[in-house]
Amino acid sequence: MKLYTYFRSSAAYRVRIALNLKGLAYDAAPVHLLRNGGEQLSDAYRAVNPAMLVPALEDDGNVIGQSLAIIEYLEETHAATPLLPSDALGRARVRALALTVAADTHPLGNLRVLKYLTGQLGVTEEVKLGWQQHWLRTGLATLEALLANDARTGRFSHGDTPTLADCCLAPQVFGAQRFGVDMSPYPTVMRIHAACGELPAFQQAHPSQQPDAE
Amino acid sequence: MKLYTYFRSSAAYRVRIALNLKGLAYDAAPVHLLRNGGEQLSDAYRAVNPAMLVPALEDDGNVIGQSLAIIEYLEETHAATPLLPSDALGRARVRALALTVAADTHPLGNLRVLKYLTGQLGVTEEVKLGWQQHWLRTGLATLEALLANDARTGRFSHGDTPTLADCCLAPQVFGAQRFGVDMSPYPTVMRIHAACGELPAFQQAHPSQQPDAE
Repeated sequence: MKLYTYFRSSAAYRVRIALNLKGLAYDAAPVHLLRNGGEQLSDAYRAVNPAMLVPALEDDGNVIGQSLAIIEYLEETHAATPLLPSDALGRARVRALALTVAADTHPLGNLRVLKYLTGQLGVTEEVKLGWQQHWLRTGLATLEALLANDARTGRFSHGDTPTLADCCLAPQVFGAQRFGVDMSPYPTVMRIHAACGELPAFQQAHPSQQPDAE
Repeated sequence: MKLYTYFRSSAAYRVRIALNLKGLAYDAAPVHLLRNGGEQLSDAYRAVNPAMLVPALEDDGNVIGQSLAIIEYLEETHAATPLLPSDALGRARVRALALTVAADTHPLGNLRVLKYLTGQLGVTEEVKLGWQQHWLRTGLATLEALLANDARTGRFSHGDTPTLADCCLAPQVFGAQRFGVDMSPYPTVMRIHAACGELPAFQQAHPSQQPDAE
């Protein structure tokens, strides 16, 4: 398998964690989002993934986009180390936690959105940072509320083994810390983040450990 | 089952289509996003869904949030009229199409985001509309590229029966038309939208047909 990735992409980071948790080897094909006017916008990458976003997974010549679709695919094709619980309600909860990050939080701080803010809207760097922090705090507060008051939360987001929800949580915390968000209002999120950080699968997926890290 | 819904919510609209396609009866519990300072922000609704977003599905006392998690739950608990194909690659494609709408397009035009633009950023109504149209066009262009050049596209987004991808496509087209986006660059999207519109499941899920429609 080949993963089109960028070391700092939150969505690529999710897939790297899932691949590592399942013990699946892959080749990293770095796509630099800032160099050459954005390599994800090149004709070469567009031919791989018409959505012009990372990550994309190539498996046996087939290309799959969207981090959550990729992880569900890995889950369906590699049963070992399940990343979703076995009961439908548990699976729904894990998917909802994942989407709280992947749909409600992360897209608002995506590179192309930040470019629109400073470009078309002409906002200052300070206002841009305020925007990023606002949506990170909103998303983290929701995640904390969903995790803190639910008996199904364990050492990880759902029970005592990592799931798809944790594949999303860890990169989101990394992103929030990078942009200076005060994490003290989210103790459950941070406790789970610490548990994730003890596992080699998460450590090896970290942006700093990637071949394209700067 | 009870669906917390708002007639014009794109995410609630997706779930209504899925419920109808599967022939599942449900009670609609309208949550008015604009009245009373936003009913989704009330203590009563927060107790139902701490994420303070619609939709949420209540099934046998259990509450599930996030439209895609709800539809996957319906798929797993009600096998009739499958909304995902039977092969892993097809399922991945359908999920990626759905996420192109649900993660990459829709969240950028969400009510709370528009409020931040006009509130904290102080942009004009015209600039706000430009923002909405820009992200709608970006998402629709991606959808068109993914659909137009793939032999797996049929009468619907994936093959000749509606899937999760179509549950997302139809509400996104409704949203884009509502905000005056020129749809002529997206002929495949519009062809599929027309096919959806012929089915009672889609017709009955339309915002104009809801008990809380205005």
